[in-house]
Amino acid sequence: MLDFEFKNPTKIIFGKNKIASLAKEIPAKAKVLLLYGGGSIKENGIYEQVTTALEQHEVVEFGGIPANPEYAVLIEALKVIKSENITFLLAVGGGSVIDGTKFLASAALYEGNDPWDILAKPIRTEIGMPFGTVLTLPATGSEMNSGAVITRAALELKLGMGGPGLFPQFSILDPQVIASLPHRQIANGIVDAFTHVLEQYVTYSVGASLQDRIAEGILQTLIETAPIITKDPGNYEAASNLMWSCTMALNGLIQKGVVSDWSIHAIGHELTALYGIDHARTLAIICPSLYRYKIETKKEKLAQMATRIWGINEGTSLEKATIAINKIEEFFRSLGIATSLKIYTKTYQMAPELISRRLETRGWIALGEHKDITPSDVEKIVEMSL
Amino acid sequence: MLDFEFKNPTKIIFGKNKIASLAKEIPAKAKVLLLYGGGSIKENGIYEQVTTALEQHEVVEFGGIPANPEYAVLIEALKVIKSENITFLLAVGGGSVIDGTKFLASAALYEGNDPWDILAKPIRTEIGMPFGTVLTLPATGSEMNSGAVITRAALELKLGMGGPGLFPQFSILDPQVIASLPHRQIANGIVDAFTHVLEQYVTYSVGASLQDRIAEGILQTLIETAPIITKDPGNYEAASNLMWSCTMALNGLIQKGVVSDWSIHAIGHELTALYGIDHARTLAIICPSLYRYKIETKKEKLAQMATRIWGINEGTSLEKATIAINKIEEFFRSLGIATSLKIYTKTYQMAPELISRRLETRGWIALGEHKDITPSDVEKIVEMSL
Repeated sequence: MLDFEFKNPTKIIFGKNKIASLAKEIPAKAKVLLLYGGGSIKENGIYEQVTTALEQHEVVEFGGIPANPEYAVLIEALKVIKSENITFLLAVGGGSVIDGTKFLASAALYEGNDPWDILAKPIRTEIGMPFGTVLTLPATGSEMNSGAVITRAALELKLGMGGPGLFPQFSILDPQVIASLPHRQIANGIVDAFTHVLEQYVTYSVGASLQDRIAEGILQTLIETAPIITKDPGNYEAASNLMWSCTMALNGLIQKGVVSDWSIHAIGHELTALYGIDHARTLAIICPSLYRYKIETKKEKLAQMATRIWGINEGTSLEKATIAINKIEEFFRSLGIATSLKIYTKTYQMAPELISRRLETRGWIALGEHKDITPSDVEKIVEMSL
Repeated sequence: MLDFEFKNPTKIIFGKNKIASLAKEIPAKAKVLLLYGGGSIKENGIYEQVTTALEQHEVVEFGGIPANPEYAVLIEALKVIKSENITFLLAVGGGSVIDGTKFLASAALYEGNDPWDILAKPIRTEIGMPFGTVLTLPATGSEMNSGAVITRAALELKLGMGGPGLFPQFSILDPQVIASLPHRQIANGIVDAFTHVLEQYVTYSVGASLQDRIAEGILQTLIETAPIITKDPGNYEAASNLMWSCTMALNGLIQKGVVSDWSIHAIGHELTALYGIDHARTLAIICPSLYRYKIETKKEKLAQMATRIWGINEGTSLEKATIAINKIEEFFRSLGIATSLKIYTKTYQMAPELISRRLETRGWIALGEHKDITPSDVEKIVEMSL
């Protein structure tokens, strides 16, 4: 096991009708900016639950934060924070709204000239404006971690940021919100969480047995829950298991003491930036190809996964690893998610060279847990993903 | 899954030679009370590492906190806290020293007349004096939770306490400390952590799939690690897996959203109070008998355990559950821990009636996840444990 530090102070409030507890979680004298996305919360009753809970608080609203939270939109929200003297942020939404709120929590207290520096340099956020979340879409785990990814469409960039000042004070997780989600969002959430675990698990072993077991436990729970929840989003038991699995997939716990990869995300982000493909779908496109390309360095953990998750006990490590990759791809497809780029765009043929060049230009010369995936490798991996 | 709230703000600093980081974790102006146990830390080098790290801090010492931390001793430490105007507590030890320190963190700021009330009533601690820990013995999980168990020998009592004010600010976990531990303490630690998981897992199912998987992951890791670490305490990989498993077994995570039992502990505490038997050994004595006695209500989870941990796929739930109980008992015995009370004391014959009467006198009329284990049942369970 590698040395590690772990601290995650976010308070999770999990269960039915927990939105009502908002009032006691936000200081009575706070001036709250309520942040949300495209307005679906006004249709599914969550907006009303939130505003009812905050009747006694002073609340300003900012809606319209898009998927892949856009820098230009967030800068408008930042102006509201300054002009209205906001002291507490409340994100009501999925990973995009929460990530956008984290940028704002950082930017609100940032003393430099240009908040873009937080992303471009990037600058680690030690102290942010306090914020809480009401999660409406299980997927990214942003509700219990201190990281965010922000898009700046004008520059075709998607950049990460984070720091210990960006853990939510609290996150309210009511699995009932899943009942009104479209299939597409549920399927995306499952793939997103599944790939988060893979990025922290399918690397080389450092003898961290418990982290492996917990990672496998999340994968198994997602595999068991997926067919139930996609067929019946109103199944509360399945919804609660999906929601907690998504949070646990990226709250820092399984990442501690082990080696992480994140090359699937790095390449996937480029697909979103270039073609606007849903984040989770970019992961499903890249993951199988990347694992096939890197099977020699990843085969031990993939073989372990084949044995422990799918009961494959026969064959060499390479054979078991191949089965695991096929099973992963089948799992994504079972959710109705295509794993070939050409299904998503007609201009797919330029992708390998374009992405490779973009990564190279930004100085990302080597990805993966061994830092051995070069721009030329990325080109081949994307080629395999067409 | 049941509704739950989860917040665990303890910072874990895990790895080799991390004691040196003490200096930056404790405020420079703090007046520190360094608390420890029987003095083994002066033999294994830990005391020297701690005092070296705190050279620039003002430090007062209080040694001699015994196993099953004794109230009378802690009251002496409390006098030192008051007379020396201590502002920060540092526990260097195992669960007993850390639990004792938690009582002191609470008592130091307690405004009532008699600190015994914290245990006797009990009073939940919302704010305690800040403290950190250097863990020297993996077992109880006290280094990352907010509970404690304190003994008052004069009254033959062992009572629990806790509250959100009693999470350590930080805990330093260096697995190298295991290398110098005697076999008895390592074996006890394994049984303690294993039983902690059982108390939160071998209950009735509420459909919390991920919690089950994580609980099973800790059990599997302990089972795999036990023969390695007991044979070679200097094996760092095994030591790190044991240490992290013990912490994860009782840091609140696997308890959230599920039903807990804790009847093994309740009965086991009586054996310690009456006969002075090591805490972990009391659990090994009671656990198999209690599970055999309650097999009808516990068989589903025990059968799941048999299948997932030991690969038992044949037979009825009852048959699989029986195998699981036998496997648990074998596991305890494989560590050199006897599971019959008569091995530990000559006056075992009085135990069933005595313990049943003691629990009844204190008003504990029903234990277990169904609150259906009466004093009369306790008498039968202890009878089966002789």
